This record gives sequence, C-alpha cells and structure tokens, in this order.
Amino acid sequence: MGPGPADVHPRVLAALARPTIGHLDPAFSAMMEELKGLLRYALRTDNPLTMPVSAPGSAGMETCFVNLVEPGDKVVVCINGVFGARMRENVLRAGGEPVVVEDPWGRAVDPQKVEDALKAHPDARLIAFVHAETSTGACSDARTLAQLAHAHDCLTIVDAVTSLGGTPLEVDAWGIDAVYAGSQKCLSCTPGLAPVSFGERALGKVKARQRPVRSWFMDLNLVLGYWQASDGRSGRRSYHHTPPVNALYALHEALVMLAEEGIEAAWQRHRANHLALRAGLEVLGLELAVPEPERLPQLNAVAVPGGIDEAAVRTRLLETYNLEIGAGLGALAGKVWRIGLMGWSSRADNILLCLGALGSVLNDMGHTADTGAALSAALSASA
Amino acid sequence: MGPGPADVHPRVLAALARPTIGHLDPAFSAMMEELKGLLRYALRTDNPLTMPVSAPGSAGMETCFVNLVEPGDKVVVCINGVFGARMRENVLRAGGEPVVVEDPWGRAVDPQKVEDALKAHPDARLIAFVHAETSTGACSDARTLAQLAHAHDCLTIVDAVTSLGGTPLEVDAWGIDAVYAGSQKCLSCTPGLAPVSFGERALGKVKARQRPVRSWFMDLNLVLGYWQASDGRSGRRSYHHTPPVNALYALHEALVMLAEEGIEAAWQRHRANHLALRAGLEVLGLELAVPEPERLPQLNAVAVPGGIDEAAVRTRLLETYNLEIGAGLGALAGKVWRIGLMGWSSRADNILLCLGALGSVLNDMGHTADTGAALSAALSASA
Repeated sequence: MGPGPADVHPRVLAALARPTIGHLDPAFSAMMEELKGLLRYALRTDNPLTMPVSAPGSAGMETCFVNLVEPGDKVVVCINGVFGARMRENVLRAGGEPVVVEDPWGRAVDPQKVEDALKAHPDARLIAFVHAETSTGACSDARTLAQLAHAHDCLTIVDAVTSLGGTPLEVDAWGIDAVYAGSQKCLSCTPGLAPVSFGERALGKVKARQRPVRSWFMDLNLVLGYWQASDGRSGRRSYHHTPPVNALYALHEALVMLAEEGIEAAWQRHRANHLALRAGLEVLGLELAVPEPERLPQLNAVAVPGGIDEAAVRTRLLETYNLEIGAGLGALAGKVWRIGLMGWSSRADNILLCLGALGSVLNDMGHTADTGAALSAALSASA
Repeated sequence: MGPGPADVHPRVLAALARPTIGHLDPAFSAMMEELKGLLRYALRTDNPLTMPVSAPGSAGMETCFVNLVEPGDKVVVCINGVFGARMRENVLRAGGEPVVVEDPWGRAVDPQKVEDALKAHPDARLIAFVHAETSTGACSDARTLAQLAHAHDCLTIVDAVTSLGGTPLEVDAWGIDAVYAGSQKCLSCTPGLAPVSFGERALGKVKARQRPVRSWFMDLNLVLGYWQASDGRSGRRSYHHTPPVNALYALHEALVMLAEEGIEAAWQRHRANHLALRAGLEVLGLELAVPEPERLPQLNAVAVPGGIDEAAVRTRLLETYNLEIGAGLGALAGKVWRIGLMGWSSRADNILLCLGALGSVLNDMGHTADTGAALSAALSASA
C-alpha cells in the first residue's frame, strides 16, 4: 500500500506465466491489436498511435520528450514534485530549453502561473505537466492546463502514470496531445511497460522533425513500423525489437479486467475507498497533507504527527503486519507517509488492515489513537 | 526453434508469476545482489558494473552506445548482418562518427579489415562488433578483435545477445570493455531485459564525459545509484525507475539454472546438439550457409534448396507441427532458414521434431528426403 508497485492481481500473474510465443506469430499480432484497443478504452482516446513502450514508465516519459522535443525547442515544464523535475531533465537531454513553473510540493499546478509563463514565452512549443504526482498525492487540472496550452499554440505532454485507471482522465475530450503511463499503479499489472498515446498534432511534429530522434530504441518513426502495421491493413510488420511477450500478456489481462469492471466504475471505487480511508484516518487523529480539492484518491499523503519517528513506523508496519507504506520524498521527506489505494489494492480489507496496523503501531509509540473507532468510521463511510 | 524468442523453461515461467514485491524491499535488494553475481558468472567477468537494463536487448545496445560515445567520437563499426547495421545507427544517434567495416552476410568479421581501418583512422576511440550475428548465424572472433582494439588504444563494445550462454564468451580474459546481451536466446528466459557489463576503462570514459548522456533512462551515472548501492556497502539506494520486478525474478531463475548446469556444460550441450542437427540436415540434402569455422551452434542458417518456396515451408511447419523456424533477413532473405537451438530449446527431442517435420514437408513439396535416415544420423551423432 505504498506509492507502487501496488498489489498485482492473481489473474495478471497467471497471464504472465503463459508459454512465450514468437513476437511475429499471428496469434501474438491478434493479441497486440486487442491490447491497443483496450488501451484506447482506458485512456478515452481514439488515437491510432496508442501502444505500450517495452520499458518502464520512465522510458514512456523519455519516449514523449525525445520524440517531441527538438534541439532548441522551448518547453514549459510544471514542477510540483519529483516527476516534474524529471521532465525538466528530459527536456535538457533532448536538447530543449525548459521554462520552469514551480508550485509547492503537495499542491496542484497553478494554471495562472502557467498562463503567465506562456505569455512571457510566446515562442514556447510545448507544455509538460504531471496529472497525478506520485511523490505528493496531488492532482492537477489537466483539462484546464491543456486548454491553456492550445490557446497558446502549444502541444501538451501529460504524465498519467498514477492517474490512469484511478482518476478521471479524458485524453481526447481534454485535448491532450501526448500522454504516457505505467503498467503498474491503478492497472494492477506488473511494472515494466509504459502505455503511450500520441494525437495527430503530436505525431505531425514527430514526422516533421528536422533532425533524427536522439534515441534509436524510442524513435516512434521506427517503433510504428512494428506496432502500427500489426492490424494487417498497413502491410507487413517490420522488426524493430523483441518485445517482452509475457509482460504484454499481463498488461492485456489487466486491461481486460479494467474493461470488465468499467473505467467509470473503477474511478468510483477508488474515490469511495479513499473516503473510507480518510474517515478512519481522521479518527486516528491523522490529517491528509494535500488540500481537499487537489487530493488524489489513489495516493494519500498523510501528515506525520509531531514526535513520531516516521521511519520507525514504516519498519514496524512491514515487520509486524507485512504492510508497506511509502515515505515522503524531497520537500516532504520525513513529513508525510504515502498510502496507496491503487488498482486491486484499493479494497475494503486493505483499508481495515492499514487503519488497524497503523493505529496499533501509533498507540505503541505513545500517540493515542482509538483504532476500533477508526475501523468503524471507515466501515460506515464505505457503507 | 527460430532466432528467438526460444522456448522459455517452465521454472522460469513459474518464477515470473511469483507475487510482486516492492523494488525497495530488503528481500528484493538481496535478490538483486544474487542476480548481479550470477550475471558475472555467466559473462565470465568480475566487473562490479554488471546488471540488467530494464528493457529489451536493443536498449542494452543503446545503453552501451549512448554512454560510451560522445559527440564527435569516431567509432569503427563492423557490419556483417542486421545488428551491426543497427550499431552504426546507434553511433549516429549518439552524435558519433561511424567508420564502417563491411563483411558479407553469413561470414565472420574479418580482423584484417578491422586492422586496416584502425590504421587508416588512428583517432578512432571505439570498436563495435557483434559476437554472434542472430541474423545470419555467423560467429566472429571476439578475442582477436578485442586484442586489435587494445593495440590501437580503442575500447570495445560487443553484442553478445545470441552468444551468452550458448557459445564461449570470456569478457575478462578477452579484455572486452562493454558488453550487452538479452534475457532471451540461450538463457531460456522471457524477452525484455538486457544484461550489460562495463569494465573499468569503459566506466572511466563514461565518468569523464564532457557532455551529459543524451538519455535520462539509460544514463549509467543515474542507473548506478540504484543498482550499485544495493550491496549495502555503498550506502542507501537512490530511486531511479521502478524496475520490472517479476521479469527480474525470471532472469534470476534462468541464471540459477545456468549455474546449476555449469556454463561450460551449457556451451558443450549447444555444440553437441548442433552437430546432431547438422548430421540430420546433411542426410536431408540441406547445407549450412555459414562456413564451418564461423558457425554458431545455437543458430543454424540452412540454405533453401532450389525450387522450394521457403515461406510456404515455414507456414506448413507452423500450421501442421506448431513449429516455428526463422526466415532469412536482408541479403539472406529468401535464401536461408534460421533454425535456433538455444537454451532450453537445444534438446534432442527438438532436433528430432525439426528434422522429422522438415523432411516430411520437403517431401510433400517434391524435394526427395529420407527423413528416417536423417533422424538416425542425428541420433548417432549425439550418441
């Protein structure tokens, strides 16, 4: 129940262990086509270029930047946590010029600051921001930020690693040009793959590049020859790299499960379980660190009470209850715990385990907490 | 029985399906340390920087080039198949200047040509070549090429994707500076990870770079903070990316199996099974396309007999016998089949299946072949 990896569903683990077949086998091509359709469903997009990058979410991020940023491109980068800072680093490596908009860790990106930056830099080509900051639990208003981008003729790159499947995300309706996620977090799949989706405008920029993409492995012009042609309409697939066949079985299964539940039902479940956890935490005397309208339901940053050794609490939870919760990072190090309720981990039994274990450990450390009442409050909230 | 993915061993598939734990969990760190030790055993090296890149073999290639090649560096690239050509592309993307040494597809790299190139380009900094060309089945003399490199003060980058575990490879004894492989092929693991190893001189070049590595995801200076520190001696591990936890379980298991068999015994098994297959192919009237001293035991390029539709043969093998063999690529397209005997696929029962199925299909197509005699020859050769 940390910031990830979240629990992987047994159905996904079973899919992972299916016999490996060749990546050029007709049966594998058929599965790839289904997988792309399922990803479009999860991302709420019709983008033909929607596919999993054969590497972790960080490589999904790099795929977006290395393809869309040309040397000299000015990119507005919003930083309100670890992953915004990493975006800035990606812009630099791609030869771009970052224009940084900073917000406090634990808060959403402020659209006003973004608008000011766009007015001050009318030559900016792109805006990049993190929808759901895994390092803080804050959710930014992706729809408003994308509108601002388009009003200033910029493309958007959006990090949806932690939002996908847990929080409303509307790639087409909000006009997001390029988005990347991870196979983990709210998809309940194993880590290692990075779903990405590029809209027509973004793809146009990639195809119109003056200089080749700096990465061979992540060059969409090459990757496309493999992933796009597999529908049989666009001709023969060209070999690019050997994809992680079994990991793709697992992602396929996780997305089938998401479609069975329904994406809106999944968003609702994450929200309901967040409210139940919050009710219990309040009774334990614990406060959420992110202001209510900016909170992510799937990642709860909890303020560490004064006088408590936060690392000792986490160690006790792991050793006594086999329960992992996350530490704070950067500006929030030592100040918060991060409790994940992501994907299959977002369940009633986990909430009771977490509240019971946390209440018990805190009581042992001298922080008076009525654990029983906290469990009751959580049960009432979810009823 | 194509050029890969080869069959994945059931023990590896079972390991893959173990419950996912956190990548910062102490139990995971312990497994990582074991994995690094097992990789050193398989690569015959003591290099501390020996680890799996969290992406397929192609990303292992890019990790070597993007870290070792600085803009303007001259790199001698040996091309005798698909993967040498890809190395050249990697040099260009990293801003380097390739000096190409070409040899015919299906032949080893000619050391004399390499020496001539080194003499003509005394400012070359690196030499890159493929040890075992998956696209043709040719094995180059890595020891001699590494000696030449050092005599001309160059570092070596060696592609060992198909050689690792199937053919003698001595990273330290031969003085290879940087090497990459894949988790698939002769390791019998699922595709998706790329073992790499860097010696002291190579690491020195990475650390002395004037300009940052062009990739954030593959920058060894960052990756090291995660993989190197996990031995507990070098202090706390710093978060870089979330690795593919379950894929690492699988690679660990595959390497445990290799250590149980013994690396020299594995080389010997690949050699013996190659000789058995060859004996059977000869009786079927089929010739190997690569000259004997340059042949890889784990990947057999077989010349397609005149008048035979090679694609129809492969389709029949797949549909009737559920057997996949590979097509020729590039200069060898339409001229050869590629029969893999890699890792767990390198077994007596597979040889009989392949010879029996191939003999039967060829007979149906009017190429007279004594299938029974071919099977007998294979059995005698392996006795």
